[in-house]
Amino acid sequence: MTTLLNNLTTISAFAPATCANVAVGFDLLGFAIENVGDIVTLTRRDDNQIIIDKIDSADELPLDPDKNTASAVVNFFCQDLNIETGFSIHIKKGLALGCGMGGSAASSVAALVAVNAFLEKPLTNPQLIKYALHGEKVAVGTAHSDNVIPCLYGGITLTQSLNPIRILELPVPDIYVVIVHPHMRLDTKASRAVLSKEILLLDHIKQSAYLAGFISALYTKDLILLQESLHDCIIEPKRARLIPGFAAVKNAALENGALGASISGSGPSVFAFAPNQERAIDIANAMQSAFADFNLASDQYVSLISKQGAQVL
Amino acid sequence: MTTLLNNLTTISAFAPATCANVAVGFDLLGFAIENVGDIVTLTRRDDNQIIIDKIDSADELPLDPDKNTASAVVNFFCQDLNIETGFSIHIKKGLALGCGMGGSAASSVAALVAVNAFLEKPLTNPQLIKYALHGEKVAVGTAHSDNVIPCLYGGITLTQSLNPIRILELPVPDIYVVIVHPHMRLDTKASRAVLSKEILLLDHIKQSAYLAGFISALYTKDLILLQESLHDCIIEPKRARLIPGFAAVKNAALENGALGASISGSGPSVFAFAPNQERAIDIANAMQSAFADFNLASDQYVSLISKQGAQVL
Repeated sequence: MTTLLNNLTTISAFAPATCANVAVGFDLLGFAIENVGDIVTLTRRDDNQIIIDKIDSADELPLDPDKNTASAVVNFFCQDLNIETGFSIHIKKGLALGCGMGGSAASSVAALVAVNAFLEKPLTNPQLIKYALHGEKVAVGTAHSDNVIPCLYGGITLTQSLNPIRILELPVPDIYVVIVHPHMRLDTKASRAVLSKEILLLDHIKQSAYLAGFISALYTKDLILLQESLHDCIIEPKRARLIPGFAAVKNAALENGALGASISGSGPSVFAFAPNQERAIDIANAMQSAFADFNLASDQYVSLISKQGAQVL
Repeated sequence: MTTLLNNLTTISAFAPATCANVAVGFDLLGFAIENVGDIVTLTRRDDNQIIIDKIDSADELPLDPDKNTASAVVNFFCQDLNIETGFSIHIKKGLALGCGMGGSAASSVAALVAVNAFLEKPLTNPQLIKYALHGEKVAVGTAHSDNVIPCLYGGITLTQSLNPIRILELPVPDIYVVIVHPHMRLDTKASRAVLSKEILLLDHIKQSAYLAGFISALYTKDLILLQESLHDCIIEPKRARLIPGFAAVKNAALENGALGASISGSGPSVFAFAPNQERAIDIANAMQSAFADFNLASDQYVSLISKQGAQVL
């Protein structure tokens, strides 16, 4: 049976940058930020082909539809749902490759939200997840959900289970996020390679206390508890060495009043939480200055946690 | 400086039985149950001695004040606060030794709450914790907090940190608890010995998702999420073999509508959550019957989660 499409010819969608792991929830937690992300425009074709028309990006990205995350997702979506049409894809990257802000997730989720909007009866977010995960698999080799889920849903999300799918949308605190992206590239694969397969039970217990404290802090709006809980004793110590100046950058954030700071996703970007915008700006500047001491130019992003996920423009 | 006492001569306190770990929070989570626990009565003496007058218990317990958890706590409390009086201690054990229901914690916390009530200005719960932990150290060799904290506070508690002390009192759901205690003894030390010092990172991630789901379920009163989250992939698989028939007992609980079941504390007792009292009774009977198939007589306890912790009678 062929899935019915509406009569639109062109649809654009935006998908936000995201910060995965959030210190306390490796591979589980993530949140979306405002104003930064990728835009994907799909235009219907008569010839049933899915091609990449154009990529606006500072990085070299594969135009081969099988290797590009956006086209791979559209392709999988069309095959799986038996959609009989082709698409030209235009990708505007707002995010650098390998920056730890969910760049590949943003492209695939934007493409997915766009192609879904061509359906007479669009799928729901939970139904879209499997396609978005396919995109991550193409991009990094494994179907990690920690960027695609907050990218799709917005807010702060926790992946309680992928089989069956159980996503928790956690309460979003009124705090500011700072993300500083140093101009270097760190592949997710390299960042995974430094992790040990085993961890100490004692570290598991300690980290569990931080996670439980963080989740409670979101529900009770207790920023002091949030601050006391925002620590990573398992992943950050392993990955910190991959980011020149990480300790100094984190320290700069904390000394300027951050509620906590850690690696954004698999790095090299570093995120911090701030109680208000004024603090956030100071923190962002101090973090950039600390990276500069290690001869790394950087970009800063300051925003609220975005309550909106990917959406049609 | 000598701490001032009021003019009472005898004080009794009750401290409830508790279930530690609660499947998802090894060494962190615990809850109190209703009606079952230990009662400790302290009577002032003129001779500055702390002695154990009497123990009503099915088990043999040490009368030596240095080895008994109740007197050790009273002794430490009096020395630390420079209290110039003696006490005769009478302990009524409502809990069997090594049953996994916080028996040693109940004795030491009841003694502590009683001795604290002799002060002109009694200490607060957070201030009492260090004395209660001392009792656990005497009883099992290490200062684990997972029974003493819920015993002292009541409800469901999470020990986010002991240094500094940060206890979270989590929302208590309207569910019933079943605890079935098979008549065998399992020492906490033996139960700790079967645990590995290292665990798989993948298991840490999985267990973190369960913990976060459970905490969220308490705040959102989502019993389906609670049910989906109440799993232990780290500790239970190691300890299950120490409890004859554990798999059958757990299965009996789940087949009779339990929201989840796992080992209570370090065992051998097994706890289950039930959506209502009727289910709880069926579950308790089925669990006892399953233990009986392994030639183990048992006791059952069915109650709400107790919102009250230890208290003066």
